[in-house]
Amino acid sequence: MKSLLIFIHNQYQELELWYPKIRMEEANYKTVVAAPEAQKIYESKRGYPCKSDIAFKDVNVEDFSALLIPGGFSPDALRMDPKVLSLTKQFFDEKKMIAFICHGGWVPISAKILKGKQVTGYIAIKDDLENAGAIWKDEPVVIDGNLISSRTPADLHLFAKAMVDYRP
Amino acid sequence: MKSLLIFIHNQYQELELWYPKIRMEEANYKTVVAAPEAQKIYESKRGYPCKSDIAFKDVNVEDFSALLIPGGFSPDALRMDPKVLSLTKQFFDEKKMIAFICHGGWVPISAKILKGKQVTGYIAIKDDLENAGAIWKDEPVVIDGNLISSRTPADLHLFAKAMVDYRP
Repeated sequence: MKSLLIFIHNQYQELELWYPKIRMEEANYKTVVAAPEAQKIYESKRGYPCKSDIAFKDVNVEDFSALLIPGGFSPDALRMDPKVLSLTKQFFDEKKMIAFICHGGWVPISAKILKGKQVTGYIAIKDDLENAGAIWKDEPVVIDGNLISSRTPADLHLFAKAMVDYRP
Repeated sequence: MKSLLIFIHNQYQELELWYPKIRMEEANYKTVVAAPEAQKIYESKRGYPCKSDIAFKDVNVEDFSALLIPGGFSPDALRMDPKVLSLTKQFFDEKKMIAFICHGGWVPISAKILKGKQVTGYIAIKDDLENAGAIWKDEPVVIDGNLISSRTPADLHLFAKAMVDYRP
C-alpha cells in the first residue's frame, strides 16, 4: 500500500488539507498527518479540527511514497522547524512526490530545493518562489519532476488528480 | 457534460459539501449550488463560505443528472422549503441519482421517498429514517436503486466514489 505524509500546523487551509487527503485515500493511499506533536488537534484557519497521527521527530521517510504540504498560514510555522525542512529535502533527494499548494510553497523554499524548478503557488508568494530561484507559472497545476504544485483551492480537482496520476 | 445539483443552506458540514463537489468536478461533472437565494454566501458550521449559483425557485430538474444533499444542520432548514422537497421528489421519480450523507437524510424523509428503501445516515437520525419507513444499515455506503447514502465525513472517500461510479 502506498503512503502519503501530510505536514500540518494550526491555520491550515481547510480544503487544501482534506480534499487531497480523502482523494488519495480513495486511490488506496494510507495517509499520515505529521505535526509538532502526535495525537493532538490542530485547527484550520476557521477552526476545523485535524488530529495529528505522528510527530515530525518520529517520521521515517522510508515509510512514505509521497509528501503533501497544504496551504493556509500553517507553512509559515512549518518552515521554521529544521526537522520539517530536512524531511522535505529527503523526500526531494529520494525523488519521491512532493505536492504543495497555495502558501505550501514556503516550505520547499526554505528546504532550498526549488532552484531552476518550474512551480506555481498563490500569487502572494510568487516573489518568494522566484527569489528562491524557481520559475513561477500561472497555471492550475505545474509538474516538474517529482514536484507538483497548484495555486488555490479552485485548482484542487486538478491538483489531486495530478497526485493520483503521478508515477515516479 | 453531466451536471450535479447541490442543496445548501447555512450550517452545512464543510467536507460533506466540498469533497463530493470537487470530486465530481474531477469526474467532469458541472456542479451547481442551489440555495434560497442565488449569488449569496452561505456559511458552514464553522463559517467556511460557499456562494450559491442558483435559487431553488429557478432550478429545472431537466438540467441535472444527479442531486447531492450534504449534512450538517443545513438539511433542517432545507426540509421546511416545499420547493426543495418537490425538486427532491422529482429527481427520485425520474430515477436520477440522489446522494445524501449524515443529516442529509432529513430531506428525503420529508420528500417522502424512503419507504422500504435501504439507506444509512448519521446515527442521530437513525430513528427518523426508520420512522419514515426506511431500512437503516450501519455501513459506510448504502446504495438502493438511485439512492446513495453515507454516515459521516469518515465515509467520504467511499461515498464520492459511489457517486462517480453510479450508472443509471
